[in-house]
Amino acid sequence: MSLLVVGSIALDSVFTPFGETADALGGSAVYFSVAGSILNPVQVVGVVGSDYPIAELDRLAPRGIDWSGVERADGESFRWKGKYSYDLQSRETLETRLGVFAAFRPKLPQAFRDARFLFLGNIDPELQLEVLSQVRRPEIVVCDTMNYWIQSKRDDLLKLLARVDMLMVNDSEARELSGDWNIHRAGRWILERGPKQVVIKQGEYGALLIEKGRTFHIPAYPLEEVFDPTGAGDAFAGGFMGYLARSNAVDTQHMRRAMVYGSTMGSYSVSGFGVRGFEGVTTEDVEQRVRQFVDLTNVPIAEPAP
Amino acid sequence: MSLLVVGSIALDSVFTPFGETADALGGSAVYFSVAGSILNPVQVVGVVGSDYPIAELDRLAPRGIDWSGVERADGESFRWKGKYSYDLQSRETLETRLGVFAAFRPKLPQAFRDARFLFLGNIDPELQLEVLSQVRRPEIVVCDTMNYWIQSKRDDLLKLLARVDMLMVNDSEARELSGDWNIHRAGRWILERGPKQVVIKQGEYGALLIEKGRTFHIPAYPLEEVFDPTGAGDAFAGGFMGYLARSNAVDTQHMRRAMVYGSTMGSYSVSGFGVRGFEGVTTEDVEQRVRQFVDLTNVPIAEPAP
Repeated sequence: MSLLVVGSIALDSVFTPFGETADALGGSAVYFSVAGSILNPVQVVGVVGSDYPIAELDRLAPRGIDWSGVERADGESFRWKGKYSYDLQSRETLETRLGVFAAFRPKLPQAFRDARFLFLGNIDPELQLEVLSQVRRPEIVVCDTMNYWIQSKRDDLLKLLARVDMLMVNDSEARELSGDWNIHRAGRWILERGPKQVVIKQGEYGALLIEKGRTFHIPAYPLEEVFDPTGAGDAFAGGFMGYLARSNAVDTQHMRRAMVYGSTMGSYSVSGFGVRGFEGVTTEDVEQRVRQFVDLTNVPIAEPAP
Repeated sequence: MSLLVVGSIALDSVFTPFGETADALGGSAVYFSVAGSILNPVQVVGVVGSDYPIAELDRLAPRGIDWSGVERADGESFRWKGKYSYDLQSRETLETRLGVFAAFRPKLPQAFRDARFLFLGNIDPELQLEVLSQVRRPEIVVCDTMNYWIQSKRDDLLKLLARVDMLMVNDSEARELSGDWNIHRAGRWILERGPKQVVIKQGEYGALLIEKGRTFHIPAYPLEEVFDPTGAGDAFAGGFMGYLARSNAVDTQHMRRAMVYGSTMGSYSVSGFGVRGFEGVTTEDVEQRVRQFVDLTNVPIAEPAP
């Protein structure tokens, strides 16, 4: 089924205790697409500047990413520079340059307007609403956001929440949005604003899928080496949505499995700088790691035979 | 099967954003026993001062706790005073008074020396070794420790590690002990020092059971109200060991189920100040909550019938 993402397409400069990158391929739409396209073709809407190394996007094309909705504008591409702490638990933004992203108004190609699975990546909620209004009959709409929009565009964000099926954010965003530090109360607060489900990403602690009266938890895949957490949340979203689109299903059982695909894609993402963690990863690799989650999580609750 | 714990029996004064307690029943052996005895009788070894409200311990006796190994010494009981942050994520120790605990040398009653399931709660590793040497033929030995002993009694602690089956600590302790911030590498480091299993408790994020080449994760039970995290780790240990003792089993499958009982007991513990979260909790309550973990965690990995 058709899967569409709108989000940032950026050049990231990242410093971690293990190395650094300069102007590497990044942004929410890129991480989402690289992960999601391992499972299902992905259509991308976004903007890049005249300085963007288009060839690098093309290099990712064989995986089934349709970049034809990416506008090329005069000016500089969106750039983000950040530095992680020694234990990768926190990061500091050193620089954000919006560039051509500042004037971006998303306009979907006709072929994209019939998308059935829609992910509104972390951009201005006004733009998220504009994209939503251009998609004719989506089966499911999932959106992300961040602290910046929670503070500066709260009204638009609440308007958006009333119109989406799911919010997918990290725990600090859920806390800030709801004003509640208890993550389960925060989840319920969000459900009361429209979405039928909330996914709360918790980094190395995994993620929660919260529905009315029901919660599901998936841990992160156990990794002894983590190099770069940048984009892990978007890769999670790509795996989650890619699985749903491939299955053409949006019921709870499929969403729970989608959580496993999300966590799996997050684990590949953090295993290399930028999107390099995905190099050479096949669908079969993904399925094998997904199967390992059964042993990692399933509670053998019935007494075994003596 | 006989289950023995050695640990502190304290009077705790705790400040949280939701209230406070003064000289309330606390200490690792108390939390362990109150939780564990819901599943299996518990024998306790420890010391209290002449000021200890023995009647309060007696009040817990109907649950199957044998306090006959608790020495009553002249002097003041062990006291701890602490204050939690607004989100209960961190705490500050305001005061620790060892009292009679400073001169404590554990001496097990004859009837306790045949204990088959042994939990060495967080006390001086020298004393943990002394207790271990007095138990004739334990089926399984699990020990806890804390940052204070990791820093001040590292040699004794490593000696102890070589002689126990499992170390059960929280994540910051595992990191400090191993000198590694990656929790999975930290777990492997510990396994290389003797224990066949490591349980790493992660508070609201649940707990990991790490064995050579295999990891299991259990989340915390979702709670919208948390009042007092004090003792949750010891309650977890009590549930874990109580389940193993009741089952008279120490294989991996039972340990995974024991993790669910541990997480369940942790959830009762944090739901009230001190040990009050356990008031009125029946075995049936526990079993019902344990069953809820299946829906919370199990990955429906096979495709459902169409």
